[in-house]
Amino acid sequence: MSERIWTAALVVIGDEILSGRTQDKNVAQLASWLNVQGIRLAEVRVVADVESAIVEAVNALRARNDYLFTTGGIGPTHDDITVDAIAVALGVPVVVHPEARAVLTRYYESKGGITDTRLRMARVPEGADLIPNRMSGAPGIRVGNIFILAGVPHITAGMLDALTGTLEGGRPVLSRTIGSWVAESEIADLLGATERAHAGVSIGSYPFFREGRTGANFVVRATEQGVVDACVAALGDALGAAGHAVVEGGI
Amino acid sequence: MSERIWTAALVVIGDEILSGRTQDKNVAQLASWLNVQGIRLAEVRVVADVESAIVEAVNALRARNDYLFTTGGIGPTHDDITVDAIAVALGVPVVVHPEARAVLTRYYESKGGITDTRLRMARVPEGADLIPNRMSGAPGIRVGNIFILAGVPHITAGMLDALTGTLEGGRPVLSRTIGSWVAESEIADLLGATERAHAGVSIGSYPFFREGRTGANFVVRATEQGVVDACVAALGDALGAAGHAVVEGGI
Repeated sequence: MSERIWTAALVVIGDEILSGRTQDKNVAQLASWLNVQGIRLAEVRVVADVESAIVEAVNALRARNDYLFTTGGIGPTHDDITVDAIAVALGVPVVVHPEARAVLTRYYESKGGITDTRLRMARVPEGADLIPNRMSGAPGIRVGNIFILAGVPHITAGMLDALTGTLEGGRPVLSRTIGSWVAESEIADLLGATERAHAGVSIGSYPFFREGRTGANFVVRATEQGVVDACVAALGDALGAAGHAVVEGGI
Repeated sequence: MSERIWTAALVVIGDEILSGRTQDKNVAQLASWLNVQGIRLAEVRVVADVESAIVEAVNALRARNDYLFTTGGIGPTHDDITVDAIAVALGVPVVVHPEARAVLTRYYESKGGITDTRLRMARVPEGADLIPNRMSGAPGIRVGNIFILAGVPHITAGMLDALTGTLEGGRPVLSRTIGSWVAESEIADLLGATERAHAGVSIGSYPFFREGRTGANFVVRATEQGVVDACVAALGDALGAAGHAVVEGGI
């Protein structure tokens, strides 16, 4: 019986990532969070603050994944066009969400009051629900299988916290890492053979060069702990038999 | 006369990025390097170590950009499938490049000698040239408008160094940053109006929350220094007139 695998995609929206000004942190953050939900991050696109680019990416990825996340472009300024672009992608109008308006009105009460500009952050594609934001005023947005999140990583994190446990997923992917001071080119055949001998397992090989020496970490992934453990044991034995000591947990 | 804009795309290949195990650094690194070459990073995709995913991304992006870069998946192990996938995308066979074979044979002379596994790293799509790698043995590969680079960031950096000044581009995008301790929702209209008043300029607004206070940095980008400077001056004046002191260089 084959197991259903739940997948998600991410569209990172922002000129600041493509210009190199800002180092993205949301890919790694979302990936780790999804693993715990039993959902695999299958693909990511980074697009500019350009409506047609956002529409294309959103429509391609929402169709072939269970969930689609976006980060960035939901603030109040002229370069924040995510909501409008996603409404275009879905073919629905943009409306002001009454609860978002109430949230923002409260949030800005002590900060000079609500304005038309600040109300921009209450705009959602028609039919959307809100995702709570406990860090700042503007909420995230859920519409269909699309989750529209903030771009600032600690605000994104708060929105993911609010979503924890609410999305259907499969079994989380489990992993164990072992390392060895060996050039991966020396044990590549052994790695491939070990992966093939263990159904449902993937082995990643991540070489490094440190303190003048060559090494590699091997990450064994599967959805069942027993399968992971058996593969790690077999890989450790094979590396040992080839004369390479193994470090549990990686180097 | 409109100016020709040169664009590049990047395909990041690797399960380790999508699993959250590894924080990508190549998007920011490539973006910064491209800026200096007068080329804009227009889009990025992160795909798994799966042939069909690589083929789709490579074919979509090479067609609509001047240059396409890939990072990752060019080592000797079973999960290194970039060369094979790109050959499929191009419809050409994989061949052993004689110069790469010579480079690898020399590199491994003092490291146990060349093996079939290590020779995997001499395989290229037919018609390819090599990109020197002064950090480790395996070279990068250029085929048509595709540049196949290593995934380990310092090795990628060495390959980019080798390419510096060899790619045709346009005028580099210049930028200046100013910051202010102001909520971006207070000055969003002013920002949008300033951008519209300066042709060829884009203004990015990057809010932050630090030391208990709200602020934002504004990045003004254009290809002519005079245009950037005029826009920065106008934005500073407008912010000052609205009662917001400006910090040159950003906060």
